[in-house]
This record gives sequence, C-alpha cells and structure tokens, in this order.
Amino acid sequence: MQLVEECIIRASLHEPQPVGAGPIGTRVHYGISGGVVEGERLNGAVLSGGEWALIGPDGCLRVDVRMQVQTHDDAHIYIQYVGLLELNETVQNALENGTGTEFDDQHFYTNPRMETGDERYRWVNTTFFVGEGRLLPNSQVEYRVWRPA
Amino acid sequence: MQLVEECIIRASLHEPQPVGAGPIGTRVHYGISGGVVEGERLNGAVLSGGEWALIGPDGCLRVDVRMQVQTHDDAHIYIQYVGLLELNETVQNALENGTGTEFDDQHFYTNPRMETGDERYRWVNTTFFVGEGRLLPNSQVEYRVWRPA
Amino acid sequence: MQLVEECIIRASLHEPQPVGAGPIGTRVHYGISGGVVEGERLNGAVLSGGEWALIGPDGCLRVDVRMQVQTHDDAHIYIQYVGLLELNETVQNALENGTGTEFDDQHFYTNPRMETGDERYRWVNTTFFVGEGRLLPNSQVEYRVWRPA
Amino acid sequence: MQLVEECIIRASLHEPQPVGAGPIGTRVHYGISGGVVEGERLNGAVLSGGEWALIGPDGCLRVDVRMQVQTHDDAHIYIQYVGLLELNETVQNALENGTGTEFDDQHFYTNPRMETGDERYRWVNTTFFVGEGRLLPNSQVEYRVWRPA
Repeated sequence: MQLVEECIIRASLHEPQPVGAGPIGTRVHYGISGGVVEGERLNGAVLSGGEWALIGPDGCLRVDVRMQVQTHDDAHIYIQYVGLLELNETVQNALENGTGTEFDDQHFYTNPRMETGDERYRWVNTTFFVGEGRLLPNSQVEYRVWRPA
Repeated sequence: MQLVEECIIRASLHEPQPVGAGPIGTRVHYGISGGVVEGERLNGAVLSGGEWALIGPDGCLRVDVRMQVQTHDDAHIYIQYVGLLELNETVQNALENGTGTEFDDQHFYTNPRMETGDERYRWVNTTFFVGEGRLLPNSQVEYRVWRPA
Repeated sequence: MQLVEECIIRASLHEPQPVGAGPIGTRVHYGISGGVVEGERLNGAVLSGGEWALIGPDGCLRVDVRMQVQTHDDAHIYIQYVGLLELNETVQNALENGTGTEFDDQHFYTNPRMETGDERYRWVNTTFFVGEGRLLPNSQVEYRVWRPA
Repeated sequence: MQLVEECIIRASLHEPQPVGAGPIGTRVHYGISGGVVEGERLNGAVLSGGEWALIGPDGCLRVDVRMQVQTHDDAHIYIQYVGLLELNETVQNALENGTGTEFDDQHFYTNPRMETGDERYRWVNTTFFVGEGRLLPNSQVEYRVWRPA
C-alpha cells in the first residue's frame, strides 16, 4: 500500500490545562490558537480547536483532536482525529526545551477524518487520511497528511 | 428512579461556524467562550470548550460538547457530553430572536461525563450525571445537572 | 426533573473474555447471547450484542455496550450506551457467587441511545433515556430504562 | 511515509440485520462469526465481533467494527476500528452476487486500534495501524493491516 501526500497541517497550542491523573489516564488539554493547512488541493487557516491528550503508563500519549479549518476560498472543514504519540526521550526533551523534533524521531501517527458540506470539497468526506506528526518549536505541532495512492 | 440537583452549568457560545450538510448530518460548531458552574459541591468557571452540533432531518440536534472547568479552589475538571436537543418552534424562535426558553419548552437532555485527577473531586469520575438544558438570551446555554438520588 | 419508566431490558452474558490490563484500564469483553425488552411501547428480543467493559483503578467499571433488538412487530432497533458500574463489595460478591443485586445496591447507570429507521419507532431516535442497572443470577444484567417525564 | 505489512485479518460475516434509515444514515449490523489473523508477529483466530455500518447519501459506507482475537499462544487482543468503504459499482455487484473484489477495486481503508494486557503483545497498544480492505466471496472481508515502516 502506497501513500501520497495531501497536505501539511501546522497548529499552535495554548499552554496546557492539566486535568490530572483520572480514571483512564492522565488527561491534558491544549487549546489550539491557530494554524495553517497547505497542500495542492487544501489550503487555509486553522481557526480553532483543541487536543484532549491522554497519557498512559506505557509512555504513550493518545491523541484526541478536533479542529475547525477555513479554506482560502471560504469552505469550512471540521477535522477530528485520534492517534498515538510515543513520549520517548527526544520528545520529552523537545517539550521541556521548547524545541522541535523530526518526523522519524518518534512514533506519532493519526487518522484525520474530515467533514464538510461544501460542494467543492465533498471529496474530503470520503477520503481516508493518515497523519504523520512532529513537534515544532514554540508549542507547535506539524502533520504531514497522506492518503492512499 | 429519583434525581437530585448537583449543579448548574451556564456557557456562552461564540458565533456558529457552519461546516454544512455533511455525510451524517448538518454540522455546526460553536466555540464556548466562558461560563460558570454553581452548586453545593461544584463551583467554578468554564474556561473554554466547544459544541460540535449535528442537525438531522428529524428536527433534532445531536449535542456533542467538550469543556474545561476550573473550580473556585483550583481543580481542573474535563466535562464531555452527548445528548439531544429538539429543534421545535419555540427553540427556533428563540435562536432567531436571541431570546431564551424554559426547561419544559423542549426535549433537551445530555449525559455529562466528568474527569479529574484532583483528590478533592474524585467523586465526579464515578458519578453518573444527567443534564437538562435550555437556551438563555445572548447565545447562552444553561443546564441543570442532576445525579441519581 | 422527573423520570418515567419506559421499559425493562434484560440481557444474558456469555463467559467473559479477558483482554487484560491495557493502556487505559482492564478490558473485559462479554458477548450478549440474548435477552428481552418489555414495556408499554417497546417489546421484543435482544438478538445479539456485546459489552466492552473497562475496569479502572478507582473500583469503577466503565460500561460500553452495543446491542441489536428486534421488536415483537418486527422493527430493528440498535441500542448503544456507555455508563458507570460501581464495583463495590455487594457487586463483587454477586459476581463471584453467580447471584444478583438490587437496584439500590450499587451506582450503576447508563445513557441508552436508540436508533431505528422504522416509522413506528421513530420516537426512539429523538428520546433521551437513562438506564438503571442491577445484576441478576446466572450472568444476566437488568436495566430499568427511564425517560424524562 | 512508508508502510510495511503487519498481518492479514479475514472475517466472516453473518447475515445483515437492517436497522434502517436512522437520524445519521442507514445503519446495518453484521455479526462477525469468526475469522483468522495471519502475520509474522500476529497469528490467531477472530472469536467474535460486529460491524455497525452506516451508509450515507454519498455512496460511502462508514465502517465501525469491534472484534475479539485470540492468538495462537493464547493472548487476547481487542481490535476496534472506524473507516471508509466506497460503495461503487464493483462493490455493489460483488455484494449482490456473493463474489469478491480486489484491493484496488474500491477505496476501503480503516485505522485498527489494538488493545491487550498480555506482556508478549504490549507493542500492539502503542502501534498505529492502517487497514486496506476488500470483499471475499461468501460474506467475508479481508484486510491487509500495515504499520509505519
């Protein structure tokens, strides 16, 4: 199975709000303050959103994100995804020092599901996507979003 | 089965972002700009959150909300819920005119699930809640939150 | 807020399949082998289903059920719910000895969401339900299902 | 981003139970009667499970599956996934005639999430998977399951 790149999503996170060690793991909320989407068919701004991360005893952060995107030509797309982020030493260091990581520094993958009513972007509703993530400096996250070739 | 009132949640909504008529219904996102929680055991502020409403052909809005609450004594609680809001004529009028409704004006119920790591509020993790909602003027929503007696 | 009883759901469980202590809790699967629904407006058989229980360190079992119901007049209804079951001493004893509990022996509540395309039962799609559960002898679970009055 | 094949999952489906055209689409339930998992690291039997398919007006079936697997060396793994299946003409014909399709005959992809408490298979909890599906004759579904290289 081959993948081709659809777009890049870059999102800026607010300071984390620590919900704490709850019944199914340690929950941390990050508001999404903004961002961009760049690609051949998808371009626009991340308007708002949030990440409800759940950190497990296995050193893995379970990603749970919802975000609102407005394209350059004024379509609204809702993107939601779950996924996995391996909190290894490289990631921990980057988080502590406010630096970034490369795509192959960690196991960080998601399954973005997009939804819109805009005729011009109907194809996002029926396309399966895979996101490959990394950290960027200054509390940013970047995903390369792929689709089956 | 008897219920007793636990608290009131009042939340202010931003202007809606219309995702449009997608594959499973018409999606509208409302950001939550703030709010309050008031009760005997629960008091605090709604810090942020969102509603990802899904409106069906049956005149019913399926509620899907996530919000972050900070109590007056500095605990963080994550509240998520799904539920049903009947979009009858009274509700439609209130939405158009920016007015409110009474609790018995519509079928508007949710099942709030609360999550925290704070020792003082551990009981919210293991308590089942029912929310009974209504609209308030100026894009606010109010829930009476109940628990089994 | 007042509730009125809608129906009883009684379901028989297969032997548990222990998935074990995973990343978000201890998962146990119970297949549902059958059951009945009895009420003024809802009567039929539980055809199949499953419970994907998640047991937390807080002595609480998070319920996650999906089941298929066929009414006496041949409508198909899909019922799904999440909820909470307090694993206190009375419940533990009942589980070990294959006996039952009373409704007020434990905090055991769910939020059944029903779905059907059958015209005669359209109302289940737009009605909010609350389930109050207890254990019956021989690996059965019984819910009183309520709706707002 | 490169993927490598992890295993094959083949599942046999019971006759569909048609829930009908509900509030968010047309729901059809298929019980899973059994199946196999075959791969270098994962081998075993599908014990039970179900698919709660949701068919939209866009000719796309939204997949929602939960299944229980027992490995050849007696570990229990819970697999759940959502995904997309394009109901094009080739798929429709195969469904009507009880025949199969090839992997490139349709857009049919899922995101299997696996969960276990078994030490020997801990890695499934923290590995992101992508499933590529096709239909087999006699109401079977086959997935090639991939992971990032």
